[in-house]
Amino acid sequence: MSRTVIHGGLVITASDEIHADVLIEGGRIAALAAHGTDAAGSWSADRRIDATGKYVIPGGVDAHTHMEMPFGGTFAADTFETGTRAAAWGGTTTIVDFAVQSMGRSLREGLDAWHAKADGNCAVDYAFHMIMSDVNESSLKEMDLLVAEGLTSFKLFMAYPGVFYSDDGQILRAMQRASGNGGLIMMHAENGIAIDVLVEQALAEGRTDPRYHGDVRKVALEAEATHRAIQLARVAGSPLYVVHVSADEAVAELAAARHKGLPVFGETCPQYLFLSTDNLAEPGFEGAKYVCSTPLRPQEHQEALWRGLRNNELQVVSTDHCPFCFSGQKEMGLGDFSKIPNGMPGVENRMDLLHQAVVDGHLSRRRWIEIACASPARMFGLYPKKGTIAPGADADIVIYDPQARQTISAETHHMNVDYSAYEGKQLTGRVETVLSRGDVVIDERKFTGRAGHGMYTPRATCQYLD
Amino acid sequence: MSRTVIHGGLVITASDEIHADVLIEGGRIAALAAHGTDAAGSWSADRRIDATGKYVIPGGVDAHTHMEMPFGGTFAADTFETGTRAAAWGGTTTIVDFAVQSMGRSLREGLDAWHAKADGNCAVDYAFHMIMSDVNESSLKEMDLLVAEGLTSFKLFMAYPGVFYSDDGQILRAMQRASGNGGLIMMHAENGIAIDVLVEQALAEGRTDPRYHGDVRKVALEAEATHRAIQLARVAGSPLYVVHVSADEAVAELAAARHKGLPVFGETCPQYLFLSTDNLAEPGFEGAKYVCSTPLRPQEHQEALWRGLRNNELQVVSTDHCPFCFSGQKEMGLGDFSKIPNGMPGVENRMDLLHQAVVDGHLSRRRWIEIACASPARMFGLYPKKGTIAPGADADIVIYDPQARQTISAETHHMNVDYSAYEGKQLTGRVETVLSRGDVVIDERKFTGRAGHGMYTPRATCQYLD
Amino acid sequence: MSRTVIHGGLVITASDEIHADVLIEGGRIAALAAHGTDAAGSWSADRRIDATGKYVIPGGVDAHTHMEMPFGGTFAADTFETGTRAAAWGGTTTIVDFAVQSMGRSLREGLDAWHAKADGNCAVDYAFHMIMSDVNESSLKEMDLLVAEGLTSFKLFMAYPGVFYSDDGQILRAMQRASGNGGLIMMHAENGIAIDVLVEQALAEGRTDPRYHGDVRKVALEAEATHRAIQLARVAGSPLYVVHVSADEAVAELAAARHKGLPVFGETCPQYLFLSTDNLAEPGFEGAKYVCSTPLRPQEHQEALWRGLRNNELQVVSTDHCPFCFSGQKEMGLGDFSKIPNGMPGVENRMDLLHQAVVDGHLSRRRWIEIACASPARMFGLYPKKGTIAPGADADIVIYDPQARQTISAETHHMNVDYSAYEGKQLTGRVETVLSRGDVVIDERKFTGRAGHGMYTPRATCQYLD
Amino acid sequence: MSRTVIHGGLVITASDEIHADVLIEGGRIAALAAHGTDAAGSWSADRRIDATGKYVIPGGVDAHTHMEMPFGGTFAADTFETGTRAAAWGGTTTIVDFAVQSMGRSLREGLDAWHAKADGNCAVDYAFHMIMSDVNESSLKEMDLLVAEGLTSFKLFMAYPGVFYSDDGQILRAMQRASGNGGLIMMHAENGIAIDVLVEQALAEGRTDPRYHGDVRKVALEAEATHRAIQLARVAGSPLYVVHVSADEAVAELAAARHKGLPVFGETCPQYLFLSTDNLAEPGFEGAKYVCSTPLRPQEHQEALWRGLRNNELQVVSTDHCPFCFSGQKEMGLGDFSKIPNGMPGVENRMDLLHQAVVDGHLSRRRWIEIACASPARMFGLYPKKGTIAPGADADIVIYDPQARQTISAETHHMNVDYSAYEGKQLTGRVETVLSRGDVVIDERKFTGRAGHGMYTPRATCQYLD
Repeated sequence: MSRTVIHGGLVITASDEIHADVLIEGGRIAALAAHGTDAAGSWSADRRIDATGKYVIPGGVDAHTHMEMPFGGTFAADTFETGTRAAAWGGTTTIVDFAVQSMGRSLREGLDAWHAKADGNCAVDYAFHMIMSDVNESSLKEMDLLVAEGLTSFKLFMAYPGVFYSDDGQILRAMQRASGNGGLIMMHAENGIAIDVLVEQALAEGRTDPRYHGDVRKVALEAEATHRAIQLARVAGSPLYVVHVSADEAVAELAAARHKGLPVFGETCPQYLFLSTDNLAEPGFEGAKYVCSTPLRPQEHQEALWRGLRNNELQVVSTDHCPFCFSGQKEMGLGDFSKIPNGMPGVENRMDLLHQAVVDGHLSRRRWIEIACASPARMFGLYPKKGTIAPGADADIVIYDPQARQTISAETHHMNVDYSAYEGKQLTGRVETVLSRGDVVIDERKFTGRAGHGMYTPRATCQYLD
Repeated sequence: MSRTVIHGGLVITASDEIHADVLIEGGRIAALAAHGTDAAGSWSADRRIDATGKYVIPGGVDAHTHMEMPFGGTFAADTFETGTRAAAWGGTTTIVDFAVQSMGRSLREGLDAWHAKADGNCAVDYAFHMIMSDVNESSLKEMDLLVAEGLTSFKLFMAYPGVFYSDDGQILRAMQRASGNGGLIMMHAENGIAIDVLVEQALAEGRTDPRYHGDVRKVALEAEATHRAIQLARVAGSPLYVVHVSADEAVAELAAARHKGLPVFGETCPQYLFLSTDNLAEPGFEGAKYVCSTPLRPQEHQEALWRGLRNNELQVVSTDHCPFCFSGQKEMGLGDFSKIPNGMPGVENRMDLLHQAVVDGHLSRRRWIEIACASPARMFGLYPKKGTIAPGADADIVIYDPQARQTISAETHHMNVDYSAYEGKQLTGRVETVLSRGDVVIDERKFTGRAGHGMYTPRATCQYLD
Repeated sequence: MSRTVIHGGLVITASDEIHADVLIEGGRIAALAAHGTDAAGSWSADRRIDATGKYVIPGGVDAHTHMEMPFGGTFAADTFETGTRAAAWGGTTTIVDFAVQSMGRSLREGLDAWHAKADGNCAVDYAFHMIMSDVNESSLKEMDLLVAEGLTSFKLFMAYPGVFYSDDGQILRAMQRASGNGGLIMMHAENGIAIDVLVEQALAEGRTDPRYHGDVRKVALEAEATHRAIQLARVAGSPLYVVHVSADEAVAELAAARHKGLPVFGETCPQYLFLSTDNLAEPGFEGAKYVCSTPLRPQEHQEALWRGLRNNELQVVSTDHCPFCFSGQKEMGLGDFSKIPNGMPGVENRMDLLHQAVVDGHLSRRRWIEIACASPARMFGLYPKKGTIAPGADADIVIYDPQARQTISAETHHMNVDYSAYEGKQLTGRVETVLSRGDVVIDERKFTGRAGHGMYTPRATCQYLD
Repeated sequence: MSRTVIHGGLVITASDEIHADVLIEGGRIAALAAHGTDAAGSWSADRRIDATGKYVIPGGVDAHTHMEMPFGGTFAADTFETGTRAAAWGGTTTIVDFAVQSMGRSLREGLDAWHAKADGNCAVDYAFHMIMSDVNESSLKEMDLLVAEGLTSFKLFMAYPGVFYSDDGQILRAMQRASGNGGLIMMHAENGIAIDVLVEQALAEGRTDPRYHGDVRKVALEAEATHRAIQLARVAGSPLYVVHVSADEAVAELAAARHKGLPVFGETCPQYLFLSTDNLAEPGFEGAKYVCSTPLRPQEHQEALWRGLRNNELQVVSTDHCPFCFSGQKEMGLGDFSKIPNGMPGVENRMDLLHQAVVDGHLSRRRWIEIACASPARMFGLYPKKGTIAPGADADIVIYDPQARQTISAETHHMNVDYSAYEGKQLTGRVETVLSRGDVVIDERKFTGRAGHGMYTPRATCQYLD
């Protein structure tokens, strides 16, 4: 069994910062020892990685990606191969992607299709959530089976009528089922029925530019749907995880529910923390690059999101990575913002952007690791295999240089998309080396991994409520 | 250097639950290794402790005790010797006690007096907060010195006019000073001026029984003072730690402030979680056993406290251990509840009562360790020496049997007081063995420690805000 | 022109309580004069009514009745003739009933049908709101016409899918239209989609008794819909009037919105103030008498409603009078609570029950008149013709004996329904004499009016926002 | 008995707007009749006032003035003679001024002194509140006597330690007493103890300009004291009236308490609605003109105050008229803002400024009359003699020209002070003619009244809670 030692770094987990050496045996973390102790000194190893002056952190867990996602007549530009490779470059060693049930088909068929896309192609480990497009007696029963075999979370949409939309009765039924089988309901919380009226009106009045995408998807309609989802979950007696929270008022709804003791959780994404409607309003058709739903919000919402992350009113930062090329894909919406494919690239940038937040004073180092690694792992039943550095955990480890400087650019990124939402942004901190189950997949900024290394990882049920 | 290995147990920290063996070298934790790995198997040791089927948890940190505290013409019945020994029995390996400034004297004089009481007498490690009874130009300046030498928290009272009471101007000045030097202000938040009016009226009307102690110290007056302390801290730009929060409305004030992003923290105590005004109303003079301030509240407040602990609206559970014997001490208040010395024993019971809360479903195991060990250590600058099990930390470790049954009783407890507030209460879980800096001080329920083993531990500033 | 003088009484309006004589000329109030003044003494009159020791109050305005309402395959038991006569007996001199648009038909057709029902049959004046069952381009345009001719309020339903239900897009469009034309949207705020799931589940599980009607129509689902309606109104920039608010959490939603400055209003009904789920749970099938939607709530909600009425968080008390006989109508739901026609009688009891609330200390006398007369008149554009006693107003006046005692009973009431929801309830206060536009229609508890006296009254737009 | 008729105007009260003629007999309103009716036409009169095109409104009630108030070694510049004359010019026909208890003296002595100042000097009616500077057993007992003889409200200060300040125990005792005798406690809600610390620090650091007056009297410290006063009132079971609310957070505290059903009321003043810290920061020493406490706030607070007035979270607009000349009085604070006498002129401007708010869309006409006339009268037991136009009420009436334009200036105002806080402000609307108990005291903008016409008016207890 191969042994690797990482020595001299500062090991940071959700709760500890320790000067410790890490011993890896056969893909798992075997031991941690205080640096300089006899215990540490006694370790023999096949490979020794010097982490002096670096952070040794758990590999990131991105709980929200959409590789090869079909949307609006096209597909997200990253395949599982390109997307998971980019994830590795960015220090993320586990993604949880969304398999999609098609209308009129079973969950199983959707899941099989997504397994087929991912199998043998991934550079890092992966798991699946299930998007339920068709909640009915049959798909409700299938939920139990999927939970039993390790697919333990199900996403519903209050937006996108006619596509992914579930009505409140379907939502209630799915929540009731989840309440019984341990599944976690993930919610896209926007009132899509009302939004579609505003979209139609905007287009009819000639307001067709990308920035109107932000106008019509009102803060009040995100807050409304968030409140509604919470009330439905309360009736069902189920927990709730709200994806891509972007508006201050939505955070307030989650906070109020949590204060009452309801098991309600929220995720936000780097785009809501670092970008704003100013980007949507960039001249020409540039704003299309930033079209995603929930939409970017005015800058003043960012402070509420940071505060929510610090307060644990929000628990997770994922990317909602769903890249569409500007050329040929985003351009489908020229003259009609509603035709712009919704989504942005980001799987490669998350760990770095959140480290920048540490540098900027928004987050502590431990909270950085918590929201990017430990909490998503715990929320989605991957803990303690993933999300921490502890004896027994998978050896998914990032050697992070907190001093290095980098500039984000589509020129240099590894995602399969022709633009970056953060083009030119300068960051302090950079991923140096990445291990996935003990194998070095990024070695001092060279990709040494391979498609097929990444394995499908069944999950336990949500551990946040333990 | 002596080596000890604890093997086979479930190591629980604030964030992890792992099957790991623990290696101790010379008083500190040298390494953790996954149980059954080569790494673990290779450890030689002078002593091996079998923790199979047990929990291996950090020694408890009780951030609020009053050994030998002068109050109302008498002294708390536990000396540092008896009190810290009882702490050890109860799985608590660090206490933070309160040195008291006397009116008209310096902080230093108070601190010296408390050092004299503790020095050479303690069974486990200890540190001090400082009670400021006389906030003035001179004592404000002294705060800086004390922070520099490791006494980094200062308690003020909005209650007890004429004794410990500080007015709002003194409070504001102390908070301003703390805001500059890194000190943390701890607040007894009750409107003592108003309470004293109600006390006088109650006595004048013949309402003299212990239960009137609870009547006059109104929930509204705890909530009021909590709100006021928060607003003063906001003006001063300082963090705030509110001690012994007992009322639902006080929790709500803390929660509201935290939602706004203010660095405000709250502690509660086992007596507020497990006892109520029903105890204060016990027949005869029995209620005197439960007289403490803030007072016990009606039972319905307990749910708000548990919820606050789960939500991180409250961060710490301490004991406010301040025992007075029923006979001779509590009896000073026969016929006049205001003469009953305020305080209850508890330093020995905290870890067990909170484990019972795990059994009862109020808390997860990790949260148990967080509120009883990690958070108090972090809040008061003792982390990561204390409060966790990690390479480099002090080897303050408890082997805890989660299946054992016990019945609390003054007959069997080790605190120097003639009654137990939890007499007859049956609990699941018990401390088996306790190590303090690597030395076994409780060995399978025999005391093997000694007065003088415990060392004074200077503290860093509050780490909660990192 | 005939002249009537009412002398010696205490005139109570929403803002004043004065000892004044009232002079009526030709159906309108010509003058008020302080009792005993020369001005009062100089009045000649054809008829003099002695109100010594009595209250002289405005005729009640019941803004929510359903005469001859089709529901669930039957019709509300009161015709416009019987219902308005009962209204007169109860001191209500104006009703605003609901014309109903049928699915696929125009608003006009519905309105014409209701005019045909009412024309020539009413004992007191009446007006109409419009229930929109089919919001579409055509009916939206019709709203403008109706507002122009004096039908200025439109009711939508978030409940009753497949019957009256509008989806959020239809609601938004109607609100936008109202925002432009001055119309007021009235909302039945319950999440009917979710409720229907719970109904189906309850019936499938054999929970078929009337009390399950209250169980499935959850407080959380009234609060949810209230919040949603508020957010949609906010997006539309329109005011909102929520009908029959029954739950404490719904009041809280309205209060929060009002605190933010939103023009949001709420109505409750006597049944929510005086009855509870205890009635729904009466033995046998008796509970069916109390089946209405929103449903009766547990008793503890009543205090929130009274408080809301005092605080002006709720503005109006209407009856939602919609009577179905127990025999033959309510019985349609034997064995299936969902088949029980929804609705209760009450138009005759409102003024008395609210006077009892004055006696019980829930309301001041002025507030009684405000919520029962002035505010509904103002809210629905009938002010100052209706709802007050002031020179120029219609002479709709009640001589009310505040000392008389009465017992409510189906034996003695005048509504065309075989039971009373308040059977046996003893009240202090009773209507003695009622004038409608100067004509005495109840004369010392004899009916002296006639079908056809009552006239259709076009309305101005909502005056609450002036 | 002399008879006056006011004809042709629009009579506006808190609840009605009617085209009515008003008949006055012997100082009281005898009758109102709809304009053009026989009833109106039949009135003979000694004097007829044509109000065509004008408003006929109740004389204003200013519930907060300080004529000849001693403060900081000087006296407010308006005597009862000059101040009440200015009030009449401004359409205010009743003031409630504050008699002051001196430290160590009885309430009676203070009241006698104030009676001596006012007796025979007033142009309009007046009443007194009592400032309690020394709450003790004796003064508490005196409260009962004063309430019995018509002085029914008592002001306490949480600010001004060493001058008017009462501690929380004194406040609680006074509230308890008021709770028993029907008195209303009025509160100056600022944490003066904390403010004095900030004042001392500001001066020590050379921040001596008037604008620092606003800096040190923090919003958080007004909100704090407001919350504290509410909690103390809750403990005492008494109502509470908070004077001169200026901060958005203080409004929020009142609103939250009212939502809970507590009998808590708030007053604001025109200076907080129309001026801001921008004025305090005017160059040179100009800012001194705007020094008052609570202080002016940043402009964004104004919206919260307007909203509070619309929502009835605030009930009254008074002036806190307490004028000090810039020359010789305000100048006492050159080089030390804490020496600037606190107070501003305004008794003459209130009705006009609030009419401007009607023009600007902040308030409806009825709400204008309610907050300026009816509510203060009702709050302080003057209703229905004062504050309304109704048969039986005192004939305190203003003929108001809603179209006239005026410019506020010290050149033209009638207050005895050398500057105006609103210098140059242009307003729409002007008082034309004023009647006090039927006597014309302002006749088409000529003063026709006299010192001594105004009579002391004993008051009933607060009617807001009826």
